[in-house]
Amino acid sequence: MNIMMPELMKSASPNLQESWDVIVVGGGPGGLTSAIYAARYGLKTLVIEKDLPGGKINVAPLIENYPGVPSAKGRDLALRFHEHAISAGAEMLFPEEVIDIITNERTLLTSSGRKFRYGALILATGCNERRLNVPGEERLIGRGVSYCAVCDGPLYRNKRVAVVGGGHTAAVSALYLSQIAREVFLIHRREKMRAEKSIVERMLRLPNLEPVWNSTVDEIRGTSKVEKLVLRRSTKSGTERVELEVDGVFVAIGVEPNNSLARKIGIQLDERGFVLTDRLQRTNISGVYAVGDVTGEPLQISKAVGQGTVAAVDAYERIFGGAYNSQSQRSW
Amino acid sequence: MNIMMPELMKSASPNLQESWDVIVVGGGPGGLTSAIYAARYGLKTLVIEKDLPGGKINVAPLIENYPGVPSAKGRDLALRFHEHAISAGAEMLFPEEVIDIITNERTLLTSSGRKFRYGALILATGCNERRLNVPGEERLIGRGVSYCAVCDGPLYRNKRVAVVGGGHTAAVSALYLSQIAREVFLIHRREKMRAEKSIVERMLRLPNLEPVWNSTVDEIRGTSKVEKLVLRRSTKSGTERVELEVDGVFVAIGVEPNNSLARKIGIQLDERGFVLTDRLQRTNISGVYAVGDVTGEPLQISKAVGQGTVAAVDAYERIFGGAYNSQSQRSW
Repeated sequence: MNIMMPELMKSASPNLQESWDVIVVGGGPGGLTSAIYAARYGLKTLVIEKDLPGGKINVAPLIENYPGVPSAKGRDLALRFHEHAISAGAEMLFPEEVIDIITNERTLLTSSGRKFRYGALILATGCNERRLNVPGEERLIGRGVSYCAVCDGPLYRNKRVAVVGGGHTAAVSALYLSQIAREVFLIHRREKMRAEKSIVERMLRLPNLEPVWNSTVDEIRGTSKVEKLVLRRSTKSGTERVELEVDGVFVAIGVEPNNSLARKIGIQLDERGFVLTDRLQRTNISGVYAVGDVTGEPLQISKAVGQGTVAAVDAYERIFGGAYNSQSQRSW
Repeated sequence: MNIMMPELMKSASPNLQESWDVIVVGGGPGGLTSAIYAARYGLKTLVIEKDLPGGKINVAPLIENYPGVPSAKGRDLALRFHEHAISAGAEMLFPEEVIDIITNERTLLTSSGRKFRYGALILATGCNERRLNVPGEERLIGRGVSYCAVCDGPLYRNKRVAVVGGGHTAAVSALYLSQIAREVFLIHRREKMRAEKSIVERMLRLPNLEPVWNSTVDEIRGTSKVEKLVLRRSTKSGTERVELEVDGVFVAIGVEPNNSLARKIGIQLDERGFVLTDRLQRTNISGVYAVGDVTGEPLQISKAVGQGTVAAVDAYERIFGGAYNSQSQRSW
């Protein structure tokens, strides 16, 4: 199959310079926003993305909650962010992974053996929703398999959906979806939720919600979109297999921040592994910021964009103010 | 003059209900984002705007720094935010002013004598840049008169611009514009800046920057766009009038948060009058949030949008979690 790639999507930049005012690690909405702002300020700005610019939104079938853009395919919105960063003057390097950071030299190393120096570093490495790791899941992402009820819920008006999980996110997702979908099944491997009592009680009172306790998902089936789930249910007499016809399944079994770089350089994390920052998005390491999903909930494009802005503005003002004495001064 | 108004721009809603889950005061990007999120969550959401939805961005000639939208007229972007909030299910009431809030009854009163109850209140009242209050200024806003260098600076490539002011914002604006414009004049009524020494020194070393000390702007002239400034300069021998030809003038003499409602109900402000919030955009008053420019710098659409998201998500989760026992429960 020959996929047409827009011109922008071809990674190039083989002869990138070594020194940058701002390097952004991660090309999702938060990182690209930092890049747009930094580049517009005239800072030499490089974004290093391990996959495709736009990040996770590339796989979102439809995005309806990025303010000012009532409806867009994830892939298209990703491209618009990417184009915006390019037109502002940022350079993009992808697919390329940052494998190490030497903070006291303000230097980082990448998977292809490149070495870059930075004045300010903005970590926008995102997070991943935990996968069920069952057959059909990967193949049907964006075709009925979703990891974000608020993002994709409105696509399931009057349909049958399942939520998988037993925590706060699963409960809130089920409550939310119950207003949209005709029927909501809540699939949990135990028979008790780990979430606030008042939320769980309200959820269980919903007329169109049916809990499916003591059950796990074995498989997600469907040809071009989700058609049914194959569940394994524990009963007193043993284990039974149950098939459940649904139009969509929302997996809400937790998220894992992509924090390995942050860990490596000693950045403070919260108890769930999200990067701790102050209100200017500064981490505990001088010159290193974090923005977007890697800093925790809400995992929303708009929140990432706000944080990306704040970090870039602060980086700019600090470089201006002489807080850095690195190579970044040279550009002024 | 008969101005064509898009259908959306006609305020209607004469028979609005009295009780709402969420009321947003102020229909700029931050407020409209809260409305988009709250309405998508299924919360009954009302936005009350004293002028036009979109707020201050309505008068921006060109917006190039809202991520994902590389270039848009302010008026168009305002309309897109407005349409988005409407399509999400929010109600809009404008032009209408909130004149009082009775926080212990979760009730507010408006200029036309309406009374509304709310579960959560989100203040998005913005701020105003201080005006010079000289002839020509109002008329030429968006036609060479700007209050935001980062927003409008790129429109002045290789042109002659003036910055008016003597503080940090004026200095940073001058530095920024010096990278874009051919010539930058810094007009200040004294002969010393109130800003960090390192910034001022760097500014004064710029080859294309000329300070114009001891000078104030008496008038901004131009037929369809800014053509020249009339300055009044104090010299040892008296006062002289100077004409300065410029293509644009950036007024950077401070901002004033629209905090009168916040003051009235005892919300904590910082020393400059901006509303203090925690990281979830909560103020010190239960159930009252603040988002956008009224919370301080950076005064950017993207920052307002991020905060609007965070506030709405928190309001939703608190209503869910039973933190409110007001009428807002009724919608569940």
